Amino acid sequence: MVAVDLGGTRMKCGLVAADGAVLHRETRPTPRAAGGRAVLDALLETVVELGQKATADGHRVRAIGVVVPGIIDAETGTVVAENLAWAATPVRTELVAAVGNDVPVVLAHDVRAGGYAELRQGALKGTTNSLFLPLGTGIAAAMVIDGRLVSGDGYAGELGHSRFIHGDAAELCACGQWGCLETVASAAALARRYAARSGRIVDGSREVLELLAAGDEIAAEVWHDALNVLVDALVLYTTLVAPTRIAIGGGLVGAGETLLQPLRDGVHARLTFQREPEIVAAVLGEEAGCLGAALYAWDRIEELK
Amino acid sequence: MVAVDLGGTRMKCGLVAADGAVLHRETRPTPRAAGGRAVLDALLETVVELGQKATADGHRVRAIGVVVPGIIDAETGTVVAENLAWAATPVRTELVAAVGNDVPVVLAHDVRAGGYAELRQGALKGTTNSLFLPLGTGIAAAMVIDGRLVSGDGYAGELGHSRFIHGDAAELCACGQWGCLETVASAAALARRYAARSGRIVDGSREVLELLAAGDEIAAEVWHDALNVLVDALVLYTTLVAPTRIAIGGGLVGAGETLLQPLRDGVHARLTFQREPEIVAAVLGEEAGCLGAALYAWDRIEELK
Repeated sequence: MVAVDLGGTRMKCGLVAADGAVLHRETRPTPRAAGGRAVLDALLETVVELGQKATADGHRVRAIGVVVPGIIDAETGTVVAENLAWAATPVRTELVAAVGNDVPVVLAHDVRAGGYAELRQGALKGTTNSLFLPLGTGIAAAMVIDGRLVSGDGYAGELGHSRFIHGDAAELCACGQWGCLETVASAAALARRYAARSGRIVDGSREVLELLAAGDEIAAEVWHDALNVLVDALVLYTTLVAPTRIAIGGGLVGAGETLLQPLRDGVHARLTFQREPEIVAAVLGEEAGCLGAALYAWDRIEELK
Repeated sequence: MVAVDLGGTRMKCGLVAADGAVLHRETRPTPRAAGGRAVLDALLETVVELGQKATADGHRVRAIGVVVPGIIDAETGTVVAENLAWAATPVRTELVAAVGNDVPVVLAHDVRAGGYAELRQGALKGTTNSLFLPLGTGIAAAMVIDGRLVSGDGYAGELGHSRFIHGDAAELCACGQWGCLETVASAAALARRYAARSGRIVDGSREVLELLAAGDEIAAEVWHDALNVLVDALVLYTTLVAPTRIAIGGGLVGAGETLLQPLRDGVHARLTFQREPEIVAAVLGEEAGCLGAALYAWDRIEELK
């Protein structure tokens, strides 16, 4: 299985066996600055070259799994992905033209692919109602409900663009709405809000977490804000869909128990009649998207034939 | 099919054919004041008598569908329902003891059963991602996601107990949380809030709607508050699960376009990247729960055998 994840700053690529073993991994640049066509060409070249490598290593490529940070039209295989400069780009058609009709192509949403990997082999294994919530540059959710990963025709899971900040405190989000969870609780928001309050540019959320550990007051404030709205979001999700386990992923989970324990305490204090979820760290890290796309394709290999 | 709905003030009972035709309907008192055992005995008596009537009328009872306003443990068939005074009451075991092992018994949640009926024969027919939201004494949601009605092990859909009122305006809800949607936007809340502001007891939400139509200022205020939080709730649900259609039910939908048009306008104004849902009135009214339980049981008659 050839798997490519376009969700991060670089393409994460892999060859994945049927049991989920990663036989080969590499990363490649994503030429975003050169535009949507360049990104697509780079993807096609990568897929073809990985297929050649697999064959040279004595493997048979059974399917291609491609993970995209955007909305996939399941019928046409076109993709809308703002940060790849794709607007209804015919990704599946181009991939099929590049690799031929014999090898099925699976397109998967980045966060849902990550959630699928956590569900099959990671922190959500064995659950039927659960949530994978990566807190990275942005925030989106992979929702597992009644045993299935939710798609909502490609639109579901935008918890990061739900309003949890109200009144004067609400900031304008890149999506055009005000007060989105993502404006306060993403890794990017943490760095941006620290810089805005302190007047000092920081090297991402990692530096904010270091400042927090060192007792910096502004870091403590923006961290407190993030925890507050995350508790709100987890309580709301729990009330609506009743997950038994929530796996937090993305850059912020590097904070470990500094993040997880206040979330557990905050959620526990707020719930009354609801079923209380376990709150844990996701375990597959950056590889989750690539692995998820491969596992998803392997699990459907019979119907893809 | 014998169907009994314990969700309202009186038991709604019916005999329902395989095509959804209601062959017989009646209501009976629910002896809540006499306690949980009395309610259970009344249910057992009703089911047995309706079965006898069906047989006398020349029908064969293929299953029993019972709709309960509470949390059903799917494995054990016990039910927790505060307003029936049931605490882990073994409803399925007692029903099987009363009607015998030959006739399968299906327990269904009241709002989800109503949603199932709307999905099969009503306002949500033909949808795969949609929402049934009855605004009655309380508020709960039946969520249709990727073609299936969501259960969440019996816990899902408590949109009415999600927080949409913040700060000093938040009132304590019966569930123990603050600022729940239900405290402002249910039919009961409308009447209660009008009475609290005007000092005048009103005959339910119906009278508040009449006062609203007559230009009463306090009625306009509490109505405006309800619309505002309903828009918030619908936007959040749309962002998270992307329904193509939302059917509003319960007593408040008697207001018709006075309710629906401001909801459409409010949701339309707030959405940016999301898929916009149609917002319509539910069509099956008070019969939805009973009909939904019967349809659900008919649809599973082969696996129930």
